[in-house]
Amino acid sequence: MKALVYHGPDQTAWEEVDHPKIIDDTDAIVRVDATTICGTDLHIIKGDLPDVTEGRILGHEAVGTVESVGTGVKNVRPGDRVLVACVSACGVCRFCREGAFGQCLAGGGWILGNTIDGTQAEYVRVPFADTSTYPAPDGVSDEALLMLSDILPTGYEVGVLNGHVTPGDVVAVVGAGPIGLSAITGARLYSPAHIVAIDLADTRLDAAKQFGADIVVNNSREDPLVILRELTGGLGADVAIEAVGVPTTFELATTLIRPGGHVANIGVHGKPATLHLEDLWSRNVTITTGLVDTSSIPTLLGLLRGDHLDADRFVTHRFTLDQIVEAYDVFSRAAETGAVKVVLTNP
Amino acid sequence: MKALVYHGPDQTAWEEVDHPKIIDDTDAIVRVDATTICGTDLHIIKGDLPDVTEGRILGHEAVGTVESVGTGVKNVRPGDRVLVACVSACGVCRFCREGAFGQCLAGGGWILGNTIDGTQAEYVRVPFADTSTYPAPDGVSDEALLMLSDILPTGYEVGVLNGHVTPGDVVAVVGAGPIGLSAITGARLYSPAHIVAIDLADTRLDAAKQFGADIVVNNSREDPLVILRELTGGLGADVAIEAVGVPTTFELATTLIRPGGHVANIGVHGKPATLHLEDLWSRNVTITTGLVDTSSIPTLLGLLRGDHLDADRFVTHRFTLDQIVEAYDVFSRAAETGAVKVVLTNP
Amino acid sequence: MKALVYHGPDQTAWEEVDHPKIIDDTDAIVRVDATTICGTDLHIIKGDLPDVTEGRILGHEAVGTVESVGTGVKNVRPGDRVLVACVSACGVCRFCREGAFGQCLAGGGWILGNTIDGTQAEYVRVPFADTSTYPAPDGVSDEALLMLSDILPTGYEVGVLNGHVTPGDVVAVVGAGPIGLSAITGARLYSPAHIVAIDLADTRLDAAKQFGADIVVNNSREDPLVILRELTGGLGADVAIEAVGVPTTFELATTLIRPGGHVANIGVHGKPATLHLEDLWSRNVTITTGLVDTSSIPTLLGLLRGDHLDADRFVTHRFTLDQIVEAYDVFSRAAETGAVKVVLTNP
Amino acid sequence: MKALVYHGPDQTAWEEVDHPKIIDDTDAIVRVDATTICGTDLHIIKGDLPDVTEGRILGHEAVGTVESVGTGVKNVRPGDRVLVACVSACGVCRFCREGAFGQCLAGGGWILGNTIDGTQAEYVRVPFADTSTYPAPDGVSDEALLMLSDILPTGYEVGVLNGHVTPGDVVAVVGAGPIGLSAITGARLYSPAHIVAIDLADTRLDAAKQFGADIVVNNSREDPLVILRELTGGLGADVAIEAVGVPTTFELATTLIRPGGHVANIGVHGKPATLHLEDLWSRNVTITTGLVDTSSIPTLLGLLRGDHLDADRFVTHRFTLDQIVEAYDVFSRAAETGAVKVVLTNP
Repeated sequence: MKALVYHGPDQTAWEEVDHPKIIDDTDAIVRVDATTICGTDLHIIKGDLPDVTEGRILGHEAVGTVESVGTGVKNVRPGDRVLVACVSACGVCRFCREGAFGQCLAGGGWILGNTIDGTQAEYVRVPFADTSTYPAPDGVSDEALLMLSDILPTGYEVGVLNGHVTPGDVVAVVGAGPIGLSAITGARLYSPAHIVAIDLADTRLDAAKQFGADIVVNNSREDPLVILRELTGGLGADVAIEAVGVPTTFELATTLIRPGGHVANIGVHGKPATLHLEDLWSRNVTITTGLVDTSSIPTLLGLLRGDHLDADRFVTHRFTLDQIVEAYDVFSRAAETGAVKVVLTNP
Repeated sequence: MKALVYHGPDQTAWEEVDHPKIIDDTDAIVRVDATTICGTDLHIIKGDLPDVTEGRILGHEAVGTVESVGTGVKNVRPGDRVLVACVSACGVCRFCREGAFGQCLAGGGWILGNTIDGTQAEYVRVPFADTSTYPAPDGVSDEALLMLSDILPTGYEVGVLNGHVTPGDVVAVVGAGPIGLSAITGARLYSPAHIVAIDLADTRLDAAKQFGADIVVNNSREDPLVILRELTGGLGADVAIEAVGVPTTFELATTLIRPGGHVANIGVHGKPATLHLEDLWSRNVTITTGLVDTSSIPTLLGLLRGDHLDADRFVTHRFTLDQIVEAYDVFSRAAETGAVKVVLTNP
Repeated sequence: MKALVYHGPDQTAWEEVDHPKIIDDTDAIVRVDATTICGTDLHIIKGDLPDVTEGRILGHEAVGTVESVGTGVKNVRPGDRVLVACVSACGVCRFCREGAFGQCLAGGGWILGNTIDGTQAEYVRVPFADTSTYPAPDGVSDEALLMLSDILPTGYEVGVLNGHVTPGDVVAVVGAGPIGLSAITGARLYSPAHIVAIDLADTRLDAAKQFGADIVVNNSREDPLVILRELTGGLGADVAIEAVGVPTTFELATTLIRPGGHVANIGVHGKPATLHLEDLWSRNVTITTGLVDTSSIPTLLGLLRGDHLDADRFVTHRFTLDQIVEAYDVFSRAAETGAVKVVLTNP
Repeated sequence: MKALVYHGPDQTAWEEVDHPKIIDDTDAIVRVDATTICGTDLHIIKGDLPDVTEGRILGHEAVGTVESVGTGVKNVRPGDRVLVACVSACGVCRFCREGAFGQCLAGGGWILGNTIDGTQAEYVRVPFADTSTYPAPDGVSDEALLMLSDILPTGYEVGVLNGHVTPGDVVAVVGAGPIGLSAITGARLYSPAHIVAIDLADTRLDAAKQFGADIVVNNSREDPLVILRELTGGLGADVAIEAVGVPTTFELATTLIRPGGHVANIGVHGKPATLHLEDLWSRNVTITTGLVDTSSIPTLLGLLRGDHLDADRFVTHRFTLDQIVEAYDVFSRAAETGAVKVVLTNP
């Protein structure tokens, strides 16, 4: 079969590799019907994630059809159409039993396209298949479903739930890339009074408006704190969601919130940030970080089936799997191409 | 009457001042029967809090007897023996109605001995008397009750409740001064499996043991992370409470916790700290800050009456009010004198 | 002035009464610009609430203009346009300090039109004015604002918040009268997957559809349990909200929920119900009751200003205050007239 | 091997049966080192649980040594000393993934000694061994550990956690049999101000005192409501835990609580109760029911190891397994014998 293989920084190839085999009895082999590219994949290609070694097949999001399963798999059968969660869950360890699948202690967590071969391939081995895949509901397209593999649970769990968004809130979202748009999508489920998107690029702010931000701020030109204070009687945002992953955006998020507010960090950070405790110590602030657990997938599936979640809106570009090198190019130049999520199908 | 007056950095005097008068109709004038000194008072005297201007009477903790009340006071009467909360609450603003009295928007919050004259005096004007004092229960000593003015609510609310201590937890308390000891006292109410106190001074660690820490770590000699990992199967503490207020102790606290753990900052910080988001972003960490609200005073009063809270244990030294300059000296040399809380009574 | 006076069961009159006077220094006298009739008023007129004595002016909802205030009132001034909450809050007692204003221990709670004279009058005395009125925001009509006095907070607090509605839930609302419609309106703020309205009257079910129920069940013809099980893989509703107040509807609500589900009772009950503990004991059920606190008014005001709450939709009929007897007639024959809320204005 | 077999109402025998075999690949066969008798077993013998059919081996609590495991078992090995939870968890279904193991949808829940053969035997087949057993910690006796199979998690989860006991609360426990004593033990972990045990038998009330109730009320002689009101300024208990399972005790529990209080039902009920909604509708009451999930076992194990949980105290009588008929006799006459838990060991 063919797959996208990482050969070190800035070197990937769509090439012939061995068909995956069942290793553990809880594995499934899944034919990839649709996959996509994540911002994290771009980080890997830059060489930022040293755990990803040469020869690794990339990708951690997929919708597919089960080809075969190990003898210990109970609930997934060959022929099943499934959503593959970006996080694998052993289902047994302390964290899995608490729903914190991203922190799995027994070989799960984010492993696909990271420490084991991933989904940007014709087939993929999915460990812990019973607890790491979800049956695809009838009437939901592969494309829409694929958005529940990583991006929608990430914005919802790590941004919206960790940030405790509640009806009537003023929510600031710092960064209007795919993750910021996911946080906006998730926040709307809780009927905030206002969603304020903040970014340096007008094209991303235009996207934010389409996704449901009612106020957008280009912070190269305007001070978001001034705008948030105007909206809130001088107090600041109830929740600020960091969706970039650099020190300045995190630090900005911590200045935007009211006493008692929440900062929910989603961004993947490579450097430390400065925490202004000399201001924050007395302000009853809560700051959270998190890796997605994908524990919200059943909820999001319910919303998708009930037509309350516009997952399709994320898909801006479509390719076949063998065009993946071109798809990476389009996705990596998102500022120009307007790419949010690019979908790769295996026809 | 006499009071301790701040005359600029390192200059205070016990001197004759005017008897306080009712200014607002919700004020009470309270005769101070017992007061104490807080670590924050030492910061003021060093000149660290520029809001405190020359001529200010210091002190924000008191048990006293009501002398007179304004015409708008409904529930407090001359002759009542009351606990004066260190935080004043208007009772009407948005934050007061949510119980966040420390963030009062209408002239309350921490004002006593800060922006208005305080309790280290024979008499004090207490604003918003109905919502900022509590009736002293029969059978509870002034000394014990005085510990509910600030130190016990601070450790309990900002350390224990913000840190979500639950039964069976492993709790690390960084700093074993008065606030750390208060956090230990509060944490014990939730039956953690272990309380690990961390400090550089063996005398403070001895106190921590007496207050209920079952493990003490002098981090000039031992690595607390090694010890916490041994206790927790390699994961780290469930909760780390910062009770010092400098960057290194905050940063230490953030390294000690397990995935999904809580860091509750109590310390008053004058400088920013470094937040290692490159490690923390994926660890599901929650970090909180807070000024005490004193909303837990009714709960703590119930525990005190029921003999579940050893408030007396904090009191290491006793003086009369006119010995306050000597009391400051003893309290400021706590490392030598072993002072935790010094009580000043007005005989 | 004129007011609607209760003279015993089935006897009311719109008649001349004394203009209200300030009794306590925290009172305000408010000119009633708009008021409405509540289902509870109909109960009073039937004689079901013996606390309401002859001579009482009815009504507990109003938007008005402050005429005068007592000397202890700080935040409300003559000329202010205000929303009068149906619950009065002393702001000082234990329950008020916890936000449970409906349980006020110091003379508040639901008193207007119950134990003191109410709002179905040209003027009303509002006790505890600082903590029982809210400034009317610019640009919001009296009619819309009036819905925040009682009906919207009741559905939201006692139905939606007590029932812990969350995104993706299947919510059953038993009873599609005004309170059921309010629960539907409030539930939509949390993006449930489905809202199933259950009633015996098709006219009320039509209204439920307009308010946002996506499924309606006339339980004189269909079994709601069958429909809920179909929607939920056989499990039952996540949340069932009781909005009628008779034993059979409460008992129905308890049969509709899944293991781990919530039953939120809003209905005002006059008789005991049967609780089938022989079925429920092992099903992890949570049942809540509650009187509205109106603590959600600030949240609902934010949503109203941000255009996220269609309060106007409740208003089906409009009268002037002197037509109140006719308005009662229309409201009491809601099945025929389709009345949801009738608004009475004082021109 | 030998086992206690149910042969219909009032008929059991300690008799020779087949040694259990692995049926599913996730099963373990466990040699029973210690087991005990539960009040539910007495109900079964009376014929109250028709799901239990003739020929069933009774018992759902055990500490034992693993004899063999199925091929799908990953974390449990022959020779391991384990605690067998009274609830079996598939680990995969929706409820198991939420920690609600008692509601397992895939063949788990309470099945041992109910729908499959149980632990009152020399050997037992334990389904879903990876997610239904816990490694026995060194230094903890079989007897103490055995109390974590059912009784301690039941009191803690269904009574204390569902009832939201918090520090300073006044907790009423209705019924001072084994489950009531477990609720008292669990409640103490949260430092309530008072625990009030209520029962008709002085012997059980004596036990309640030993377990930590500071106030005991024989409600054949005293009115518990009067006593609770005296303790709480007239308001009532914060939490009332029902630990009997008959209508009158449940109804009593609902009268004892304050506005905003919690009633946590633990009792196994065979009949409906009356819910006085005509009083309760406006009192902000929360009522919960529940089957134990045993999700608290890791927490309770941590407390047991840290010496914060006196599990041994429950064990009043000891037998060898072949004396089980005598043990049942002693346990069923608890009022006379003072039996709380009887331990049966397999020497």
